[in-house]
Amino acid sequence: MKALVYHGPGKKSLEDRPIPTISAPTDAIVKIIKTTICGTDLHILKGDTPTCKPGTILGHEGVGIIDKIGSGVSAFQVGDHVLISCVTADGKCEYCRKGMFSHCLNGGWILGNTIDGTQAEYVRIPFADTSLYKIPADVDEEALVLLSDIFPTGYECGVLNGKVQPGNSVAIVGAGPIGLATLLTAQFYSPAAIIMIDMDDNRLQVAKRLGATATINSSDGNAVKKLMAMTNGRGVDTAIEAVGIPATFNLCEEIVAPGGTIANIGVHGTKVDLHLERLWSHNISITTRLVDTFNTPMLLKSVQAKKLDPTLLISHHFKLDDILEAYETFGQAAKTKALKVIIEA
Amino acid sequence: MKALVYHGPGKKSLEDRPIPTISAPTDAIVKIIKTTICGTDLHILKGDTPTCKPGTILGHEGVGIIDKIGSGVSAFQVGDHVLISCVTADGKCEYCRKGMFSHCLNGGWILGNTIDGTQAEYVRIPFADTSLYKIPADVDEEALVLLSDIFPTGYECGVLNGKVQPGNSVAIVGAGPIGLATLLTAQFYSPAAIIMIDMDDNRLQVAKRLGATATINSSDGNAVKKLMAMTNGRGVDTAIEAVGIPATFNLCEEIVAPGGTIANIGVHGTKVDLHLERLWSHNISITTRLVDTFNTPMLLKSVQAKKLDPTLLISHHFKLDDILEAYETFGQAAKTKALKVIIEA
Amino acid sequence: MKALVYHGPGKKSLEDRPIPTISAPTDAIVKIIKTTICGTDLHILKGDTPTCKPGTILGHEGVGIIDKIGSGVSAFQVGDHVLISCVTADGKCEYCRKGMFSHCLNGGWILGNTIDGTQAEYVRIPFADTSLYKIPADVDEEALVLLSDIFPTGYECGVLNGKVQPGNSVAIVGAGPIGLATLLTAQFYSPAAIIMIDMDDNRLQVAKRLGATATINSSDGNAVKKLMAMTNGRGVDTAIEAVGIPATFNLCEEIVAPGGTIANIGVHGTKVDLHLERLWSHNISITTRLVDTFNTPMLLKSVQAKKLDPTLLISHHFKLDDILEAYETFGQAAKTKALKVIIEA
Amino acid sequence: MKALVYHGPGKKSLEDRPIPTISAPTDAIVKIIKTTICGTDLHILKGDTPTCKPGTILGHEGVGIIDKIGSGVSAFQVGDHVLISCVTADGKCEYCRKGMFSHCLNGGWILGNTIDGTQAEYVRIPFADTSLYKIPADVDEEALVLLSDIFPTGYECGVLNGKVQPGNSVAIVGAGPIGLATLLTAQFYSPAAIIMIDMDDNRLQVAKRLGATATINSSDGNAVKKLMAMTNGRGVDTAIEAVGIPATFNLCEEIVAPGGTIANIGVHGTKVDLHLERLWSHNISITTRLVDTFNTPMLLKSVQAKKLDPTLLISHHFKLDDILEAYETFGQAAKTKALKVIIEA
Repeated sequence: MKALVYHGPGKKSLEDRPIPTISAPTDAIVKIIKTTICGTDLHILKGDTPTCKPGTILGHEGVGIIDKIGSGVSAFQVGDHVLISCVTADGKCEYCRKGMFSHCLNGGWILGNTIDGTQAEYVRIPFADTSLYKIPADVDEEALVLLSDIFPTGYECGVLNGKVQPGNSVAIVGAGPIGLATLLTAQFYSPAAIIMIDMDDNRLQVAKRLGATATINSSDGNAVKKLMAMTNGRGVDTAIEAVGIPATFNLCEEIVAPGGTIANIGVHGTKVDLHLERLWSHNISITTRLVDTFNTPMLLKSVQAKKLDPTLLISHHFKLDDILEAYETFGQAAKTKALKVIIEA
Repeated sequence: MKALVYHGPGKKSLEDRPIPTISAPTDAIVKIIKTTICGTDLHILKGDTPTCKPGTILGHEGVGIIDKIGSGVSAFQVGDHVLISCVTADGKCEYCRKGMFSHCLNGGWILGNTIDGTQAEYVRIPFADTSLYKIPADVDEEALVLLSDIFPTGYECGVLNGKVQPGNSVAIVGAGPIGLATLLTAQFYSPAAIIMIDMDDNRLQVAKRLGATATINSSDGNAVKKLMAMTNGRGVDTAIEAVGIPATFNLCEEIVAPGGTIANIGVHGTKVDLHLERLWSHNISITTRLVDTFNTPMLLKSVQAKKLDPTLLISHHFKLDDILEAYETFGQAAKTKALKVIIEA
Repeated sequence: MKALVYHGPGKKSLEDRPIPTISAPTDAIVKIIKTTICGTDLHILKGDTPTCKPGTILGHEGVGIIDKIGSGVSAFQVGDHVLISCVTADGKCEYCRKGMFSHCLNGGWILGNTIDGTQAEYVRIPFADTSLYKIPADVDEEALVLLSDIFPTGYECGVLNGKVQPGNSVAIVGAGPIGLATLLTAQFYSPAAIIMIDMDDNRLQVAKRLGATATINSSDGNAVKKLMAMTNGRGVDTAIEAVGIPATFNLCEEIVAPGGTIANIGVHGTKVDLHLERLWSHNISITTRLVDTFNTPMLLKSVQAKKLDPTLLISHHFKLDDILEAYETFGQAAKTKALKVIIEA
Repeated sequence: MKALVYHGPGKKSLEDRPIPTISAPTDAIVKIIKTTICGTDLHILKGDTPTCKPGTILGHEGVGIIDKIGSGVSAFQVGDHVLISCVTADGKCEYCRKGMFSHCLNGGWILGNTIDGTQAEYVRIPFADTSLYKIPADVDEEALVLLSDIFPTGYECGVLNGKVQPGNSVAIVGAGPIGLATLLTAQFYSPAAIIMIDMDDNRLQVAKRLGATATINSSDGNAVKKLMAMTNGRGVDTAIEAVGIPATFNLCEEIVAPGGTIANIGVHGTKVDLHLERLWSHNISITTRLVDTFNTPMLLKSVQAKKLDPTLLISHHFKLDDILEAYETFGQAAKTKALKVIIEA
């Protein structure tokens, strides 16, 4: 089968690989219908993710059809259309029992990381019963590709951890795909204000269209001042970090109101300064989270009920044969205005 | 009246000052029965608290008798015995409505800071109706002096923010009075383990006596290793910082388990390193809080019901005339083994 | 001044009464701009509310202008435009401290019940600082009349108590004004389904227009069957009772799914059957609540942010001189299609 | 093997039955070490539980040793000592994902009900990976027999649902084994008062010894009056129903304070009167729950940490050969003073 294989920092190729086979009774083999590329895939290609060894097929998102199941799989049958979770959960360890699938002792984020992933014609899914979701008949499958990772991530790490509530004010720092997914799911809770902060005017325009009540271009260094002016000098109840660098995290520290929350989504490569000399008395919370995908069933229901339209974030389509071009387009988002690119297998 | 007055960094004196008078209809004048000294008073004397101007009477803790009330005070009468909260609450601003009295727009921590405090024979209490608590007849008043600040602080900033729960594991870094108050109130929730960490063996022995299930002397630099050995390499569900320096906060970052909470109590004078490059994916929360004293009525009930004995933390007694000696004793705790010192007015 | 006075069961008149005066330092006198009539006023007139004595001016809703304040009022000035809460809160009792203003030991629902109310040119508001809300300059005051009671009631007793959540299913039994206010505020949380149940097709049409995803006319006795068909035989996560009779409460018992909640809003005059022989093992919650109006500031912000439009429930306008006609219209809602009627003072 | 078999209302016998075998890959066969008898077993014998067909081996509690495992079982090995949960959970259905194992679509309470149970030498446990708990080496296994059902039931249905909190007041109606297990686990949260209500003085004495702060013998019909006197006329924050008849549920309705919770544990055979004409405005919650055993790992940790001693409720010991005598003793608790009886297999 065709597969996009990582070959060490800066190197990847589309090549021919054997179709995976069942290796444990709880496995399923899924024939991929559609997949996508994640910012995390770019991180791997930069060499930031040493857990991902050269030779690994990339990708942790996608929808497909069950092709084979192990003897221990009972929730799915061959032919079922399924959504693949970016997080694999054995469903029985101490962490899974708490719904904290991200830290599953036998799973977690392994797809396209420590085991072969979804940017291929087929993928092996361990613990299939608790790592796949049946797709209802009436739902647009392409939309669901974005429920593998980006929407649960924005919702769980940003919106839920950030305790977004009716009447509250929210700032989202970073208007990339993950920031925009956060913006869309933040609206589940009808906050009074959602202020989007980024340095790219195009993305801020998209944010405005998708429901931001205000936007701030932070490239002039005056983001804090502008935001304080918008909030009567008070700051926001929720500041969501969706970039992953010290500057944006520090911005969140500056704009969070007393009693508020900083919800970190960004993948950070370095430590940040935490200004406890100021914040110790501000009654704030700071949260971090690797997505658990605990809320995927809820997101599926919301898509089905037309309360959420993930396709708003799809900017490009490619065939699996053209996945290198897809990477090119996605990697140069500022130029191509790419948000999420769909790859058809 | 006699009063302990701050005269700038390093300087204080016991001197004669006029008895305070009602200056707003919501004021009460309280005749002090007993007060105490807080670590924060030592901070002020070091010059760390620029909001506190020379000439201010120190102290934000105490019990007393209502001596006079303004025309707008309805919850108290002259002669009532009352517990003074370290935090003044107007009871009507946006923050007070949420129970976040620490950020009251017209109050907060002002006693012995921006207005005269309790280390005197009399004190003026603004917004008396919502800043004082009536003392039930059958309660030991001396015990209640510790409910002005230290017990609500340990409970709210440490135990509640730290989400201490039955079956969980807790580490408290710092076995000073505030750490010990946290230790006592953590036991309200029957956690499976409470590990106390400090560099003073005497304080660790006290902690053991007050309910710590294990202690770690961190002076050899091996605290993380020892704690991990005690927790099967997993770390603790709750790490409570009760010191206020980068080293102890960083220790908390090292020992908090995935899914856990770092609850900061310490007053920090400098920024700390937050290792997001490791913690971004650990599903943790970090909380800060200036005590709200929202839970003072609950603590009062617990003392009354004999579920909490604050007197366990009282090590010394002094007369107000000898308050300079009391400061001496409290300031050299390592030598004097002082915990909380009671001052009788 | 003109005032609508209750004179015992079935009797009321518009008559001349003296303008109220300040009787406690915490009082304010408010000149009414607009008020409205509540279903509860009709209950009083039926004689169902013995706490309301003949001679009382009715009404517990309205907006107005501060005309006079007592010496203890500090949050408002003469001339301020204010929203009147149906619940009076002293802001300092045990219940107010918890945000449970409905059970304030010195207040609660007293306006137009145990003291004179708002269906008049002026009204005296006790504990003004904690029972009134300043109206922002840019908000439609007429809309806010509905924030005195009906919107906080629908939101707190129905939506919050009912734990309405994204992706969940909700049934609201009763499409009168209170049911419709519940419908509008339930949408703050983006549930996947909101099924409105009533016997009046007109009201169900209104519900459809205001966001119900489905409606059921229960007059044929098949509501349970129809609802079960809509929910795959499972029932709803939240069943909200907005009528106040045994039949509708029992309907909620039949349609609540395991793990779900029945949130009672209705004012009941008689006991109901609770089928514990079936429900003991269903992991459900049943909640009751007299509105606390704790969330009025949030609702104000939501109106200001255009996330909530209370005017959708306004069907008629009258002058205070014509309030008897307004009562007539409101009392015959099935015929007049009245929802809320605005009375201009 | 020997087994206690139900033969229809009033009929049971100790007889020889074949040792169960693995019938699904997720099954385990457990050799029973110790089991016990539950009040529910007596209900079955009265004919109250039509789901339990004649011919079924009774019992849903116990500890044992894994004797055989199916090919799909990965969390346990032959020889492991295990605690059996009274609730079977497949770990993957919609309800199990939420931790609501009691309503597992493929499990729930089936042991000793719809499939053969634990009052035998061996038992087949479906979905073993998510329905058994490994027993740590250092724990008293006999104590753990009470963690199969009675302690999770008291804790989840009574204490957790009842929101027992530090400083609060709790009444437990019914001092049988389940009421006493509730009493012990309520102390996890250090409430200020726990008032035990029953008609049997012996049980009330036991309650006093196990931590009740007060007791009320309700046989004179004055329980409400006495409780109100103890609570300044206010009632309790939490009223826990641990009997299962209308009279005791109604008592809870009378004694719950505004803002409080009635947590029902009792298995009811008939409807009860819910006095909404009084309670609609009291801001109360009523909860029901079939135990989920979600908290069994926490209870295990608490026993291991010596925060909970379940053996306090063990009154008698029998051999499996003498199980009929054990039923006799347990069934006549008023006379024999039986609490829980341990059966050794």
